[in-house]
Amino acid sequence: MTQLGPGRPRLEPRRRQGHTPRAEILDAAAELFTTKGYGNTSTRAIAEAVGIRQASLYHHFAAKDDILDALLGETIAAAVELAGLLRGRPEPAAVRLYALARFDLEQLCAARWNIGALYFLPELRGDRFARFRLRRDHLREGYEALAAGAVAEAGVAGVPGAEVLPFRLVETVINIRTDQGEVSADARRAIADAGLRSLGWQGDLGTLAAEADALTAAVREQGATG
Amino acid sequence: MTQLGPGRPRLEPRRRQGHTPRAEILDAAAELFTTKGYGNTSTRAIAEAVGIRQASLYHHFAAKDDILDALLGETIAAAVELAGLLRGRPEPAAVRLYALARFDLEQLCAARWNIGALYFLPELRGDRFARFRLRRDHLREGYEALAAGAVAEAGVAGVPGAEVLPFRLVETVINIRTDQGEVSADARRAIADAGLRSLGWQGDLGTLAAEADALTAAVREQGATG
Repeated sequence: MTQLGPGRPRLEPRRRQGHTPRAEILDAAAELFTTKGYGNTSTRAIAEAVGIRQASLYHHFAAKDDILDALLGETIAAAVELAGLLRGRPEPAAVRLYALARFDLEQLCAARWNIGALYFLPELRGDRFARFRLRRDHLREGYEALAAGAVAEAGVAGVPGAEVLPFRLVETVINIRTDQGEVSADARRAIADAGLRSLGWQGDLGTLAAEADALTAAVREQGATG
Repeated sequence: MTQLGPGRPRLEPRRRQGHTPRAEILDAAAELFTTKGYGNTSTRAIAEAVGIRQASLYHHFAAKDDILDALLGETIAAAVELAGLLRGRPEPAAVRLYALARFDLEQLCAARWNIGALYFLPELRGDRFARFRLRRDHLREGYEALAAGAVAEAGVAGVPGAEVLPFRLVETVINIRTDQGEVSADARRAIADAGLRSLGWQGDLGTLAAEADALTAAVREQGATG
């Protein structure tokens, strides 16, 4: 038996992804929530999937909704961080929007479980998830501000209502993963591009991609060291 | 007491939307599934919400998943019908695609409950919902064929992978309704337009809208009488 957290013995050797018991619990819960359903999954089933006792799980999470909240937070954490690093940068809004969209959709596609599908749970409308909703609203508003900025600086007429689309387009990878399991590289590129084109933005997307990826690398390195 | 179906007395006067007991059950189930969650809703709770006995509910639906299947079917029925009527029509694919997208997103927005949010339930991956998945895949493929046709007839280079976007853009109204409750008229228009623009289609959308709406009216009238 291997040791787990506060000295409790494990029932079985590790069988989940993750380097810590907490990460293993999150991985097992993510699988069960997305494949069996949130309502159909008990903390007992999660503990069993990890190979630990239910009491050990409670050392890390007091209740099932705490696990859901942690998982939901992970789906937006990296994008929220990047959006924060991009805020107030001198680069054009179009470059920053494209950088955020490309990064966000890549990380949504790379995640082992399609947790975004849980955004549609009615449970999320309760007070328990108010903080998550606020953070996600903030991310959405960040996208919308960059979209409005991209239209303004391009000097185009813009498309009324279209500023909501870059964020919503990125989220379509959640729908595609739900139905089809995988999002092709072409589709990922087309989704990011459609975010700009839907605004009426007419510039060169090849140039924009190079600038966006360079910016993402620069601000993330700065964020990590600064 | 009013009479219900096969002579069973109602517990209370009608309190749901719908002209038939079946429609009232579907309305109550749609509300409960989208506000409390599918897993958290029992057939007993649905019967109570309608004001009928659980035994009466079973005259109409043998099980909860039959109710879900009927509700899901309703979310795509009108779009599937229109897609069928548009198939093989002589009008340009761009007109037919825009007609389908505009109609589909209007009906998704007009529905009393946002049933599309239930597409993400893991339960839908089971055999029970294979027929629904097939019908919805067929609708999606109809969108993709029209998108490919619109690119071909416009003689533009096209955007690899973008043919999936008109369908996925229409579905974003489900996400917007989930988060924000309502989809503005500007956003609805921008979504349909983005479907065309994301393909690289550069024509005039005002002209296309007039042609598309005329086509929808014509084929639906023909479908109703023919």
